Amino acid sequence: MTDGPRIAIDAMGGDIGPATIIAGAAAARRKDKALHFYLFGDESLIAPELARHQSLADAVTVHHTTESIASTEKPSQAIRRARTTSMGMAINAVKDGRADAALSAGNTGALMAIAKLALRTMPGIDRPALAALLPTLGDHDLVMLDLGANTECDAQNLVQFAVMGAAYARTVLEIDQPRVKLLNIGTEELKGTGELKEAAAMLREASYLPMRFDGFTEGDQLSRGEVDVVVTDGFSGNIALKTAEGTARFVTDLLRRAFTSSLRSKAGFALSKPALHMLKVHLDPNNHNGAVFLGLNGLVVKSHGSATPKGFANAIKVAASMVRNDITRKIGDDLDEFRAHAFNGEIGGGENAAKPVHGEGEAA
Amino acid sequence: MTDGPRIAIDAMGGDIGPATIIAGAAAARRKDKALHFYLFGDESLIAPELARHQSLADAVTVHHTTESIASTEKPSQAIRRARTTSMGMAINAVKDGRADAALSAGNTGALMAIAKLALRTMPGIDRPALAALLPTLGDHDLVMLDLGANTECDAQNLVQFAVMGAAYARTVLEIDQPRVKLLNIGTEELKGTGELKEAAAMLREASYLPMRFDGFTEGDQLSRGEVDVVVTDGFSGNIALKTAEGTARFVTDLLRRAFTSSLRSKAGFALSKPALHMLKVHLDPNNHNGAVFLGLNGLVVKSHGSATPKGFANAIKVAASMVRNDITRKIGDDLDEFRAHAFNGEIGGGENAAKPVHGEGEAA
Repeated sequence: MTDGPRIAIDAMGGDIGPATIIAGAAAARRKDKALHFYLFGDESLIAPELARHQSLADAVTVHHTTESIASTEKPSQAIRRARTTSMGMAINAVKDGRADAALSAGNTGALMAIAKLALRTMPGIDRPALAALLPTLGDHDLVMLDLGANTECDAQNLVQFAVMGAAYARTVLEIDQPRVKLLNIGTEELKGTGELKEAAAMLREASYLPMRFDGFTEGDQLSRGEVDVVVTDGFSGNIALKTAEGTARFVTDLLRRAFTSSLRSKAGFALSKPALHMLKVHLDPNNHNGAVFLGLNGLVVKSHGSATPKGFANAIKVAASMVRNDITRKIGDDLDEFRAHAFNGEIGGGENAAKPVHGEGEAA
Repeated sequence: MTDGPRIAIDAMGGDIGPATIIAGAAAARRKDKALHFYLFGDESLIAPELARHQSLADAVTVHHTTESIASTEKPSQAIRRARTTSMGMAINAVKDGRADAALSAGNTGALMAIAKLALRTMPGIDRPALAALLPTLGDHDLVMLDLGANTECDAQNLVQFAVMGAAYARTVLEIDQPRVKLLNIGTEELKGTGELKEAAAMLREASYLPMRFDGFTEGDQLSRGEVDVVVTDGFSGNIALKTAEGTARFVTDLLRRAFTSSLRSKAGFALSKPALHMLKVHLDPNNHNGAVFLGLNGLVVKSHGSATPKGFANAIKVAASMVRNDITRKIGDDLDEFRAHAFNGEIGGGENAAKPVHGEGEAA
């Protein structure tokens, strides 16, 4: 076993099944020889797949279980039987320090609930959020959260997501003062839900935070490269993410039709093929696969439930990069600093917020 | 004056200003000689623009006012002074029967509030919804609502939107039994907000409705052409619509970059240009401009606030087509029929629902 990142993988999660997951792990291992995988799932399904991938020899430890969390299972039900399931066992490996990150393509709600119960949220954070990097026309990707972990969010949740998203951008995008905006249906102050208006007011006040809060943004501005962190509730975030994926596919499908509509355009397509291949690579959701739960005392990464082997390999790459960046500690350090500056030591006044620390000059 | 559709236009609404609005009206009039416009706004700004467009001679009646609703104005404030504003006067022209439809590119929230107060909702409908046709890969467009009129919606609102959307699809898309789905963050029954689950349960029960309710759909399925009507709250609908617009522009911008990345791809682009032009026409939001408020006793159409003259002309075309289709009466007839079949005559148990009508055989 190497000293590289140890990734605990739910080999049974998602629609994709062990064959795709293990092919993804093999692809990731071919590019990154330092990786070690713990695979949790049905050994009778895993073993034959492992035999097909030379790159996984000596790179895998299998932990057998026939139980897994169904995609239709309620989170409340999933947490009760988590301990003996492939998903729960992968998360427990992180909790016990045997693995550096857990990765699953399974039921997002169950993954969130099990991870939250096993790993607990960081001080000052009430709820973890699912964050991912999305492509833009600018110099770098943008961080967007929450992408579906929390269907409904209050203002405090949104403020905490902003703080975590900014910390993530500081680490992964190496931006000192990330530009942060809240996703809304207009940029005027009076637009949107009460939660959004309240969160905006709180973030406007919080000038001590190492970020530039820039008000509201709209769905059509996301890919312009004019913002580093976009904060939203998990429902809207998921709708936006999936609509963007669907629209990108829609446009490329129309493009394919356009190119095959005449002999002339077919010739044009043949000439343009190398350039269009770059476009395809840029837009393929598999190349952006791997969303991270921020705000937990441990690293959990979510893969798209219908990823290809390449997509799953990309999620492994994200997990390994987070481990090497020591992202959990860095976000924790950022949060500590934020809380030291924040009024009463609270980030958005969350329930889990630390109690105020009295300064030396104060009366006891 | 002709017998054609009479459109009352808020000449001061939106970011675009009278010049773009009047150029749009002129473009619409060139294609449709039966149109007559009532323009509401500042005559000193309108008159010089009118003089520039030959096609508008004898096609326009100007009603002077210097007051207009600002894009930042709260709906509650807007309704108090609506009567003397360009937006309010355009809507009142519909109320008084002087015009067949009102059209504005202005403040959506104010337009909704003023229209609701002046025209009232149809029997059985608590809140109007903003509906538009979106392009798909299928044989026809899809109807999506609400696109931003109602930031928060309860289950009854969503059920009523489904009924109105289906009636709209029956009229405009000529589909007898439209396939209707609720926008959600997953297709499993347990996914989403309480409002969505409740609305789904009510629609599943309502087998008497002339539609096929098909459960939940997700953002990445919208453009596949597998659904005729997509129902959502105004917040998510607006996020989805704008994200789709932004992503389409993002992909076409990437495409432009790809095509100019080498001499070879430039040659390919030159050859493919006619085919790609079709793509551009298909994706240009201006070609889909014009969203309709459904559920009012009168026709009100909303243009994008930053439409081009071509885009504004398209919104006029939508308004004229709704007038010629007699859409308000047809949706009203559909609603009457639905209410006659519905339990207690209520559509989703709305406050405005008609009281039950006793059958002849019943005891008094």
